Amino acid sequence: MTFLLSELAARVGGEVQGDGALRIERVAPLESAGPSDLSFFANPRYRAAFEASGAGAVVVEPEATLPPGRTLLRVKNAYLAFARISTLFHPPREPVPEIAPQAAVHPAAHVHPSAQVMPFACVGPAAEVGARTILFPGVVVGAEARVGDDCVLYANVNVRERCVVGHRCILQPGVVVGADGFGFVFDPLGEGSGPRHYKVPQAGIAVVEDDVEIGANSCVDRATLGSTVVGRGSKIDNLVQLAHNVQVGPLAIICAQVGVSGSTRLGQGVVLAGQVGLAGHLQIGDRATLLAQSGVMNDIPAGETWGGYPARPQRRWLREEALLRRLDELSKRVRALEKAAAAGHTDTPESE
Amino acid sequence: MTFLLSELAARVGGEVQGDGALRIERVAPLESAGPSDLSFFANPRYRAAFEASGAGAVVVEPEATLPPGRTLLRVKNAYLAFARISTLFHPPREPVPEIAPQAAVHPAAHVHPSAQVMPFACVGPAAEVGARTILFPGVVVGAEARVGDDCVLYANVNVRERCVVGHRCILQPGVVVGADGFGFVFDPLGEGSGPRHYKVPQAGIAVVEDDVEIGANSCVDRATLGSTVVGRGSKIDNLVQLAHNVQVGPLAIICAQVGVSGSTRLGQGVVLAGQVGLAGHLQIGDRATLLAQSGVMNDIPAGETWGGYPARPQRRWLREEALLRRLDELSKRVRALEKAAAAGHTDTPESE
Amino acid sequence: MTFLLSELAARVGGEVQGDGALRIERVAPLESAGPSDLSFFANPRYRAAFEASGAGAVVVEPEATLPPGRTLLRVKNAYLAFARISTLFHPPREPVPEIAPQAAVHPAAHVHPSAQVMPFACVGPAAEVGARTILFPGVVVGAEARVGDDCVLYANVNVRERCVVGHRCILQPGVVVGADGFGFVFDPLGEGSGPRHYKVPQAGIAVVEDDVEIGANSCVDRATLGSTVVGRGSKIDNLVQLAHNVQVGPLAIICAQVGVSGSTRLGQGVVLAGQVGLAGHLQIGDRATLLAQSGVMNDIPAGETWGGYPARPQRRWLREEALLRRLDELSKRVRALEKAAAAGHTDTPESE
Repeated sequence: MTFLLSELAARVGGEVQGDGALRIERVAPLESAGPSDLSFFANPRYRAAFEASGAGAVVVEPEATLPPGRTLLRVKNAYLAFARISTLFHPPREPVPEIAPQAAVHPAAHVHPSAQVMPFACVGPAAEVGARTILFPGVVVGAEARVGDDCVLYANVNVRERCVVGHRCILQPGVVVGADGFGFVFDPLGEGSGPRHYKVPQAGIAVVEDDVEIGANSCVDRATLGSTVVGRGSKIDNLVQLAHNVQVGPLAIICAQVGVSGSTRLGQGVVLAGQVGLAGHLQIGDRATLLAQSGVMNDIPAGETWGGYPARPQRRWLREEALLRRLDELSKRVRALEKAAAAGHTDTPESE
Repeated sequence: MTFLLSELAARVGGEVQGDGALRIERVAPLESAGPSDLSFFANPRYRAAFEASGAGAVVVEPEATLPPGRTLLRVKNAYLAFARISTLFHPPREPVPEIAPQAAVHPAAHVHPSAQVMPFACVGPAAEVGARTILFPGVVVGAEARVGDDCVLYANVNVRERCVVGHRCILQPGVVVGADGFGFVFDPLGEGSGPRHYKVPQAGIAVVEDDVEIGANSCVDRATLGSTVVGRGSKIDNLVQLAHNVQVGPLAIICAQVGVSGSTRLGQGVVLAGQVGLAGHLQIGDRATLLAQSGVMNDIPAGETWGGYPARPQRRWLREEALLRRLDELSKRVRALEKAAAAGHTDTPESE
Repeated sequence: MTFLLSELAARVGGEVQGDGALRIERVAPLESAGPSDLSFFANPRYRAAFEASGAGAVVVEPEATLPPGRTLLRVKNAYLAFARISTLFHPPREPVPEIAPQAAVHPAAHVHPSAQVMPFACVGPAAEVGARTILFPGVVVGAEARVGDDCVLYANVNVRERCVVGHRCILQPGVVVGADGFGFVFDPLGEGSGPRHYKVPQAGIAVVEDDVEIGANSCVDRATLGSTVVGRGSKIDNLVQLAHNVQVGPLAIICAQVGVSGSTRLGQGVVLAGQVGLAGHLQIGDRATLLAQSGVMNDIPAGETWGGYPARPQRRWLREEALLRRLDELSKRVRALEKAAAAGHTDTPESE
């Protein structure tokens, strides 16, 4: 499938600067793009790559200041436009309606006839799989679990019993939805057999709402009672841990290796950068942002950006970090004051 | 299955305040509980939910001060009692003794006739699977591995060759027991082919003792030589990494995303909060607690609570953090002293 | 298989001190070694174990100062020598050339006749599996993916469509190569249906070069466009996240639970200790080392060791940490200066 550059510009509401009749055969990164490839440039770190690129045309922001001589597709929100063009070249996989003979679909399961179930996928009793949904090899949909329409569950995904996955969800390989939450009570007597950690039944479920994507090997635990919920349109990266009874608001962005402890609630559009950890029973307000690796022990008001460990408002965190960087100097200034005091004179020590 | 509230109170040694003849049909969280549901309340954060709850009865501590008019089940160690009641309503899954025709059990494997092996589970040569143990789809028990009685291995769990899992263990989906430890020696010559990292054979095993639970996608590496051991009754959350030759004492609690480096030994009842990291070859004393995200580079004495990075005793850590929070003010006070010194007079700068 | 100690010494270029005719039947750790076992000693933490050991012989460095009376194999780079001897006792697994009848190999796949495909492994259309490569149960090699010669892919590994794994690679259980990168653009209008995160097609691939090992449940995402690359001879531990378009130079060492964000490039021989996190679009120079749990927001020059959060050169980090430990004292010294100033006399406050 190929497109004229002018067609692509029309589709995304942009403007061609140069040859609109250029036939685009691929999208490609700046470094490897050739004369019939469309590329993308915004991050100034890659300016040299832009200048050296062999790309036939490049998608850029309308106001980008660039040397003349290169064919450009100028468009507002350039990366979104580029992504939409890339989707034209790389449309999502279409299901091939079929239950592979080596799959194990329980007779009491409901698999929509337009769905695709690959070899060694397993659908339990009373489970439901929606229209056009694709189950890759090794997927296990537990008893009474429901997976909606137009989903892709990659290899070895497990949706445990009674859990719910909405429509248009993508679960990358190895995702686990509905493992038992980590709930134990210390039992000092253990009914006579000595101390033990008594397992609290994890009798709830996990619900993944529509349009959610979850990254490889991430885990969404089922609730102790009630539901753990990943809200509509949220996007979750790899190796993330969402504990029992966590509530993720719609449109959250949760980067790799984040851990959210039990019963914490994230508002709408919350952003958690990589490796962030949140304690349990917290409220994170709408559109709050947590910077990478921060450790959160408090509620966070809506719209704020916090960082550090323990997490605090970004401005305060940055100021405190800057002061830390100058602690050596501060220590020397105190020493100078002490010396001056000892000497009994009042010469100013050098400062800053 | 339903119970009279008075029956439940008798079973856990508690006392009903209100109508003991109330028939309880479910356990439920405060927010969603109805008139025939039993709920639980302890954390003051949820007081409003308690007050607004439609629960028929609520389990609370004997001494909890609560407004009158609500039916209560007062009992010591209320959460343990609630958990035991919840278990009555949600008894553990019973195995259906069967080897699914789509399972692959090696002719030289020993699977107890009361065990359940689901489709696409695989049991290797000379492997053993104990009485009433359940293997979910995609479970792989390697050659000569042993899994005890009354275990549940959820989907896609892998117990590699020769490793041992005790009785009454629960391995959540995706758990890996016995992957090779991360052992390489830098080999500058590489037998003439240039530098390489030479793989040290990971010839030992991993042993998971009785009554252990391990969370989804967690990893317990096999030992280089000898055994990695997860001690009896320990509970491990999701996405945890236990490296080769680690020893976890009995009754440990290890929260999500913790990493323990090679050969480190955790004593009995150690608690590691979320995302803690431990260096290798350390000794963590009995009942020591590590606070969330701490980074541990030293041995830790029994019974102590440490936090921070690098980890230090909690009191010291908190004091140092508090001082950090006041660094801005300290910096200003030094500036004031300098100005005073420069001006040659001795007026006291304002302080604290 | 057994060896004379003198044979072993000859093979690794070492020297026996004691009885070279000793027949060695096993390698074993100091604590459990018996009279026909060879053990290893270097770390002074284990000196007591060395002294108490029942090992028939112990491999040590040539210059190690040790009490007489014990049979030693003295050799330069003793741990490498011990590892090579251990490999004699624990040679790598040989494939049994066979495609299990319960495997699902697509008719258009190319599986080398010397390869071994175990039950419930799945090889997609046009995929290639090289000579002597072993696919454990539950492995899924996607359409058009290529796995080279002499690889071992343990249970439930997934190499997604079009991705490439070189020769002599070891992928521990649950590894995911080629999951979609985490790429979304905020789309405020969502074509009329309200705000959403628009999925950027992840149309590239992931390439794992020769001699790479990847630990259990680790993830190497495919590129947005182009390739994510894990360079030749690199070794990666468990639960590691390598994001889209990351480039890992040859011979890197990446410890457990590290996360590398998109498009970051690691030079040759880089070492990332456990739980390190790197921001995106960074350049980490050859042989740079990042200490455990550090959080990296900047490029790092070749050969340097950085630590802390945010990461900074190790010396600076250690100095700043030391100053932090003395902040309490500094605070007291400032107080003393203030008091002295207030009192109008010039006695030196005690310092350090």
